[in-house]
Amino acid sequence: MKNGMFITFEGPDGAGKTTIISMVARQFEGAILTREPGGIDIAEQIRSVILNKENTAMDPRTEALLYAAARRQHLIEKVKPALEEGKVVFCDRFVDSSLAYQGYARGLGIDEVLNINQFAIENMMPNLTIYFDIEPEEGLKRINKNKGREINRLDLENLEFHQKVREGYYHILKRFADRIVKIDASGTLDEVFQKTIQIIKDKLEETKP
Amino acid sequence: MKNGMFITFEGPDGAGKTTIISMVARQFEGAILTREPGGIDIAEQIRSVILNKENTAMDPRTEALLYAAARRQHLIEKVKPALEEGKVVFCDRFVDSSLAYQGYARGLGIDEVLNINQFAIENMMPNLTIYFDIEPEEGLKRINKNKGREINRLDLENLEFHQKVREGYYHILKRFADRIVKIDASGTLDEVFQKTIQIIKDKLEETKP
Repeated sequence: MKNGMFITFEGPDGAGKTTIISMVARQFEGAILTREPGGIDIAEQIRSVILNKENTAMDPRTEALLYAAARRQHLIEKVKPALEEGKVVFCDRFVDSSLAYQGYARGLGIDEVLNINQFAIENMMPNLTIYFDIEPEEGLKRINKNKGREINRLDLENLEFHQKVREGYYHILKRFADRIVKIDASGTLDEVFQKTIQIIKDKLEETKP
Repeated sequence: MKNGMFITFEGPDGAGKTTIISMVARQFEGAILTREPGGIDIAEQIRSVILNKENTAMDPRTEALLYAAARRQHLIEKVKPALEEGKVVFCDRFVDSSLAYQGYARGLGIDEVLNINQFAIENMMPNLTIYFDIEPEEGLKRINKNKGREINRLDLENLEFHQKVREGYYHILKRFADRIVKIDASGTLDEVFQKTIQIIKDKLEETKP
């Protein structure tokens, strides 16, 4: 790979992640913003098997393997070629989402899910991962505000799951402390945006030849 | 698991494998004969992504992950419940096919492909695997005879690949010597059938409580 820089973003929905990333990507000329399956035809086909509502019998391990397969194809067709051209690639969610959601919160085991993902990505781990941290209650409030509704019973069940996802991310943060930076996403959009930009600029500076 | 017995069959096309298995299955009352994706809806969907002729950009690792995903679902929905009912399950091809074809012949590495398959099957390895061994040339002759044609240039290219597949199976035979039995498939259908039946009967006898 030339000079490319692979930067991924993680965190729960409601942390403002997707909004921030698109603001960030505009600051870096020639950068690519993507998310799985990212318009890659084969990855879209795999995704549609995962998301097919008829597939209620899908086993969690089947699902984890399918996510890893879609990830592989998106990486090979879109991310890797851009990195080899020396581009900065921003990706909304990557391996760590599988580790936190399926490995930890769904109970498959972080190591086990990491294992199949290593087969999928070989050594193409991100150079930098930014994790947007927020209290699950706060994230939920934001999502509901956007949808114009109050918190209901189902939300409270979900809250427990999202608490586990957060715990999962905390485990991953400890394990990959060199790669992942946690940002407190409870502040204003502009505050979080400024912090994010600063971390990325520092990283790009640090790795300049 | 109760008293179920999981028996898989391996080897190249042209070894007579599929014919023999259906003959064998008829000898054991209540036994189940299956092959991936085995009519399991989710596994069929995954299979159709693998076999879609438009998907020329499919990476070999994506393909290996998809095979593992389809295998998982077939195992969970069809094989495991039958074994738990104490049935004998005959399966036409299983993990070893991925190891020989993708791991060895396609060069992904036997260990690497075994690794993702272990995630898929957990500890549900077959109790017995019968490998039908035949010279690739001989297998090819048989296939072509069935199709009523002569060996052509493409066949010769394929021959090289099938030579590698056979080498792959030989590696696997050494590695899993306790589980896999090699049968010389160059004899007549009846000879191969008789040998196969004998091996299975011996195994069932050996594991009787």
